[in-house]
Amino acid sequence: MTADEADRRAGVEAGWTMRHAGVVTRHECVLPETLATMAAAACRAAVADAGCDWSDLDLILDASTCRHQPIPCNAALVSAELGGEVSGIPCFDLQSTCLGFLVALEVVNALFAAGSRRRVLIVCSEAGLAGVDWRQPDSAALIGDGAAAVVVERQAPDGDWTYRHLTLAEHRETCEVRGGAHSRPPYDYTPESDAEYRFRMDGPKLFRVALETLPGMVDELIGSTGIARSELTVIPHQASPRAVAAVRRLLRVAPDRYVDRAAEFGNLAAASLPLMIDLERRAGRLRPGMPLLLLGTSAGYSQAGAIFRL
Amino acid sequence: MTADEADRRAGVEAGWTMRHAGVVTRHECVLPETLATMAAAACRAAVADAGCDWSDLDLILDASTCRHQPIPCNAALVSAELGGEVSGIPCFDLQSTCLGFLVALEVVNALFAAGSRRRVLIVCSEAGLAGVDWRQPDSAALIGDGAAAVVVERQAPDGDWTYRHLTLAEHRETCEVRGGAHSRPPYDYTPESDAEYRFRMDGPKLFRVALETLPGMVDELIGSTGIARSELTVIPHQASPRAVAAVRRLLRVAPDRYVDRAAEFGNLAAASLPLMIDLERRAGRLRPGMPLLLLGTSAGYSQAGAIFRL
Repeated sequence: MTADEADRRAGVEAGWTMRHAGVVTRHECVLPETLATMAAAACRAAVADAGCDWSDLDLILDASTCRHQPIPCNAALVSAELGGEVSGIPCFDLQSTCLGFLVALEVVNALFAAGSRRRVLIVCSEAGLAGVDWRQPDSAALIGDGAAAVVVERQAPDGDWTYRHLTLAEHRETCEVRGGAHSRPPYDYTPESDAEYRFRMDGPKLFRVALETLPGMVDELIGSTGIARSELTVIPHQASPRAVAAVRRLLRVAPDRYVDRAAEFGNLAAASLPLMIDLERRAGRLRPGMPLLLLGTSAGYSQAGAIFRL
Repeated sequence: MTADEADRRAGVEAGWTMRHAGVVTRHECVLPETLATMAAAACRAAVADAGCDWSDLDLILDASTCRHQPIPCNAALVSAELGGEVSGIPCFDLQSTCLGFLVALEVVNALFAAGSRRRVLIVCSEAGLAGVDWRQPDSAALIGDGAAAVVVERQAPDGDWTYRHLTLAEHRETCEVRGGAHSRPPYDYTPESDAEYRFRMDGPKLFRVALETLPGMVDELIGSTGIARSELTVIPHQASPRAVAAVRRLLRVAPDRYVDRAAEFGNLAAASLPLMIDLERRAGRLRPGMPLLLLGTSAGYSQAGAIFRL
């Protein structure tokens, strides 16, 4: 979907999306593609790329924001889509909106440390465009659809992994979908209440909160590793082209050490970080031993970061 | 809510719920109580009981089936309900329907093993009654509402913990809520499609799958610990009075080593196991060093079990 098409959907003048959101292109999940088929395609590509068999996997962990249906968990529905070869592999979901992939890595590292898992498939599949509110183009024009999956293998000895995560729930109203669950159930939906069932975000407020709280956490995270800031390659959650650019300046990271591709894809929520990792890897810019900083913010308000060597 | 009231809601003859479901009493979450207020009340009780301060907690993990709203995660909304004292503590959710609490324990044990957390608050808050379909009384008459929370502390040296979990997604259709997320969004709701947005369960089919697959997993789990079956106290997920009774016979557990209270509460989904632990503990039936088997099945179809010493 081009920026022109986003202008048309929002009913704004031509050029508005480019000027205000800066997202040039994005993908949209349309039938017969679904959250589950996108997830399964990403899983198949990841397993083929990892050169492992399905039977080598001992967990399927879905860390998406979007849900295919309320019950069962997404991972079980992805498992069904993948078919008999994955039957038996345990499935569950993590929910941490845009931080889903980072939290999943933290959990999987812990499962590795405990010795209970050796090879885990993490999948994030997002189709947020269907749930945006085009009457609020400021947030709608940022969103894109897509999926990414990663096979994570235990290293022996355990790799280094430094992680920080905090939630400031006093800012929960900066980013919400209020309707569609217990407090405002689907069966109370009326066309008049439609906006209550849509994604809403106060981007400027969210950005102010991030400006205040992100640098301190990142300084502390980097400081605890002993790795120089200039050595790190930084992959931030691609929340919006403006936010990604501002975070780079805020954290004083050189452009060639920083991944900024939100204009090409829009905000893919939890799928953003693993997609960026895949693109960087395919472009030959990720090399073994390289120290990486993954960083993100999410609804909640939450923020998290992790530093590890590839 | 008594069985008589369930009969009335389902429009069946008096005595039907007692004869078919066997749930004598259950609680119902009604306003001003919400998923988040029930969760917060359980969290406050757990923290008071643990004798710790809020500042001692380093993670709030919500493992409920029910969601308060689609975005942000439940744990952030519980954090907001708890107020400023928990601001800063990281929050995320696990989604594994009725296995949520067991999976949360597995994840928290792993985080302890990795050394990244020391004291975690796990909360499960369920209000499934609002989403049942009284036109399908077989499943509706089993459900109850409630919440439970547990403070889990790292032991040094690490405690023993043996865990098994598997998913057979070919049986995903035995237990579902199809409508309310991406594949059938809230904003497509019409009164004619109401049933698609409600909880549906093929109890007999689910039970046949469990009969076939649960005993093998439990045998293997017990065998791997070296603890005699007769020494274990078994707390199963309280899916339904009939299922709980049948699982006891199937696994050959003595009645005095088995917790069977589904008739008093109905199926509380992920809140069932932690509520049973709390009730047993308050009744003085759980003693330090006692080996416990927690066991459950969920939508997916998934099943899991864990053995550990208190």
